[in-house]
Amino acid sequence: MPNISNKGKAMPQSPIRKLVPFAENAYKQGKTVYHLNIGQPDIKTPQIALDAVKVHSLDILAYTRSEGSEGYRTKIADYYAKNDIHVKHDDIIVTTGGSEALLFAFGSIMDTDDEIIIPEPFYANYNGFSIASGVNVVPVISKIEDNFALPPIEEFEKLITPKTKAILICNPGNPTGYLYSKEEIKKLATIVKKHDLFLIADEVYREFAYDGATHYSIMQEDGLEQHAIMIDSVSKRYSMCGARIGCLVSKNKDVIQTALKFAQARLSPPTLAQIASEAALQTPQSYFDEVIDEYVDRRNTLIEELQKIEGVKVAKPKGAFYCIAELPINDADVFAQWLLEKFDINDETVMVAPAAGFYSTPGVGLNQIRIAYVLNKESLIKAVNIIKEALKVYKD
Amino acid sequence: MPNISNKGKAMPQSPIRKLVPFAENAYKQGKTVYHLNIGQPDIKTPQIALDAVKVHSLDILAYTRSEGSEGYRTKIADYYAKNDIHVKHDDIIVTTGGSEALLFAFGSIMDTDDEIIIPEPFYANYNGFSIASGVNVVPVISKIEDNFALPPIEEFEKLITPKTKAILICNPGNPTGYLYSKEEIKKLATIVKKHDLFLIADEVYREFAYDGATHYSIMQEDGLEQHAIMIDSVSKRYSMCGARIGCLVSKNKDVIQTALKFAQARLSPPTLAQIASEAALQTPQSYFDEVIDEYVDRRNTLIEELQKIEGVKVAKPKGAFYCIAELPINDADVFAQWLLEKFDINDETVMVAPAAGFYSTPGVGLNQIRIAYVLNKESLIKAVNIIKEALKVYKD
Repeated sequence: MPNISNKGKAMPQSPIRKLVPFAENAYKQGKTVYHLNIGQPDIKTPQIALDAVKVHSLDILAYTRSEGSEGYRTKIADYYAKNDIHVKHDDIIVTTGGSEALLFAFGSIMDTDDEIIIPEPFYANYNGFSIASGVNVVPVISKIEDNFALPPIEEFEKLITPKTKAILICNPGNPTGYLYSKEEIKKLATIVKKHDLFLIADEVYREFAYDGATHYSIMQEDGLEQHAIMIDSVSKRYSMCGARIGCLVSKNKDVIQTALKFAQARLSPPTLAQIASEAALQTPQSYFDEVIDEYVDRRNTLIEELQKIEGVKVAKPKGAFYCIAELPINDADVFAQWLLEKFDINDETVMVAPAAGFYSTPGVGLNQIRIAYVLNKESLIKAVNIIKEALKVYKD
Repeated sequence: MPNISNKGKAMPQSPIRKLVPFAENAYKQGKTVYHLNIGQPDIKTPQIALDAVKVHSLDILAYTRSEGSEGYRTKIADYYAKNDIHVKHDDIIVTTGGSEALLFAFGSIMDTDDEIIIPEPFYANYNGFSIASGVNVVPVISKIEDNFALPPIEEFEKLITPKTKAILICNPGNPTGYLYSKEEIKKLATIVKKHDLFLIADEVYREFAYDGATHYSIMQEDGLEQHAIMIDSVSKRYSMCGARIGCLVSKNKDVIQTALKFAQARLSPPTLAQIASEAALQTPQSYFDEVIDEYVDRRNTLIEELQKIEGVKVAKPKGAFYCIAELPINDADVFAQWLLEKFDINDETVMVAPAAGFYSTPGVGLNQIRIAYVLNKESLIKAVNIIKEALKVYKD
C-alpha cells in the first residue's frame, strides 16, 4: 500500500474536530450543546444577497473570469473606498474564500522551507495553509496579560532569518479579538520595509471593531504599497460563510500577476456565490449597526459573566467575535471533552475550543479556551454558567 | 521591494491567456470570433439544478461540513452505483471543483520534489497544480498517430524513480479526447501495484464516451482499492462549470483522512453550488442522451471538416469534447495570434488553443492545436472553414 505524504501526516486536524464525536454522543443522549466553539455566526445573511440568487436568469452556470468579473471587482473597490482604502479593481483577485486568498499569497511569495512570522495564538488554519504550501510558521508569542497586543517589535526582529519572507497578522484577531492600533501597524510597516518582507493582513473582521475604535488597514499605510497583501472575505461581514468568496488585494503588481496564475489554474471562483456577494455590497449600514450592537452586547455579557468566575482570566476583545479565556485547569483538551461527556445542567452542556491548537509553540495555552460569541445573549449566559458550575466540580 | 517566489515565477500562464488581448482587439474591430479554444460548453445546465437555488429557504448562508453533507455524498455514491462504481459516502470528499480535488490528492500523497508521471499532452493545469504543490511532472509522450492511446507500459517503467509517487491520467482525455480501454487501465493497475504507486484518474468527462464505447473507471478495477484516487466534477457533466463542485473518491482510508485535513483547513465547499449540484443528480437520462447525440454530431462534423484540409492530421476523439489537430505550420502560437490579428472571412475569425501548452516536454506539439467542440455545428463548420482558408495564405 503506497504511503501518504509527510506533508499530509503533518497537516493538523482542526482543534475542534476531535471533540465532534463527543458532541454527537451528547446529542444522542438528548443533551443540548451550546456551541461556543465555532465561528459560524447565527446572524442572518442580508436578504438582498439571499434574494439575488433566487432571481438569477442564468441558463448556463458558466465559469467567471479567474480573477472575478471586472464589475464585481470594481464594486469591491468602491466598498474599500468607503472604508478609506484606495485600490483599483485590478489590485483585486476574487478568491474562493479568504482561505484560497491565503494559499495564493503563500504560493506567490514563498518557496519550500521559507518562513513566515505570525503572532500566536493565531487562526489554526494558518498552520494547515503553511504545511500545504511547504513553508514554516515561526511564532512570536502575544500574551493574555497584554490583551494579546502586538509583541515588542524586537521579538519579531530576533526571529528574522534569510528564509523569512513575510509577517502575517489577523486584524481584528481570531482567536484573540485584538484590534491592532495604527501605531502597531506602523511598527510592523517599519520592520517589513527594513527587512524587505511582505506584510499579510487577514482583515476579514474589519467591520467588527468595537468601543468606537477604528480599524486601520495595512492598505492605508503610505509607503507599504509593495509590501502589503490584504486578505478579505464576505464570510463574516455578511454572515455568508458558505458563499466561499474572498479576495486578495495588493498594489504590488508582481504579487497580483503571480496570484492570478494560481487563480487561472483553478479556473474560476464559484459563480452563484459571486452573484450573492455582489448583491451583498448593497447591504444598508443599518444592518451593520444592528449586528455590531448585537456583538458588543454579547461581548459585554460574555466578559462580565466570565469575570465572575473565580480563577478565570480573560482578555477583553476589541473586535471580531472571539475571546480567549484562561481557566483554572491544566489541560483544556481534557476539560472540553469532559464537559461534553460528563457534565450537564438539566441536560445542557457546552462545547469550547481548546486554545492550544491556536498556538504553534508546543505546551503553550494548554489552560486556555477560545470562545466564539456567535450565540444570543441568553444562550451565552447559560453557557458561561455551565462552565462556572463545571469548574466547581472539575478536577484534572 | 520583496521578491515573489520561484514557485510563483514557475507557475505557467494559461496557454490561451496570452491570446486573450488579441481576441479582445478583434472584438473591438467588430469581428466575430469563434471560440474553439475553451472548455466552457454552450450546453444548457439542467433546469432542475438552476431552479434548486431559486427556491432555497436559507436565512443564513452557512458553512457545510468540510467533506460535504452526508446527504449529498450518499446521493453521489448512488450516482456512482448506477455507473457500476461501488463506493460509500465516506469514500467521498466534496471539493471546490475537480481542481481542488487534484490539489488535495497531490498534497495528500506527495512531498516537495516528488514525481508524478503523466501521459502528455495533458490538461495544462496539471502543471500549475504540480508547481503549487512543489512536485515535478514527469511526462510520457503519447502520439497523435496512435490517437493518443496509452504509451507502452515500458515507457512508464523507465521513468519510475524512488521519488515517483503516482501516475495521473485523464479519462476520457482533455485535450486528446482519448478514452482508455479496460485493458489499458489494467496495465496501469499492474504497474502501480508492482511499484506501490497511486493511480489518479481525472474522470470528469465520464459521460462523454462515444460510438458505443463504455467508460472503465479505475474504481472498477479489483485489487486497486488502496492505489486508486478518482477526481470528479459536476462542471462538464451538467454544464455547471461555474458551480465549482467536484469530489475526490478513494477507498484508501489514509488518503481520505488526509485529504479531509486539507478540506478542513479551507472549511467548506460552496454551499449554494452544493444545492444546485445535489439537485443536478436528478437530471433525467434524456438530458444526457441529447447532449451526447449533440457532441457526437459535432465531433463527426469537426473531424470530417478537418480531414478535408490538406496537410491536417487529426486524432479521432472517442470521448470528452476536445481534439488535437496537427497543422501544416511550424508554430501554432504564432498562427493562433495571426488568426486573431490578421485573418478573417467577412469579419469572422477563430481562436484556437496552441497545443504546446499541453505538453511538458519543450518543443513538442508546436504545430498542434486543441479544438474544443463546444460550439454548435453551423459555427464549427464556419470556424473550420476559416482555418482552411487561413492555411492557404498563412506563411510561417
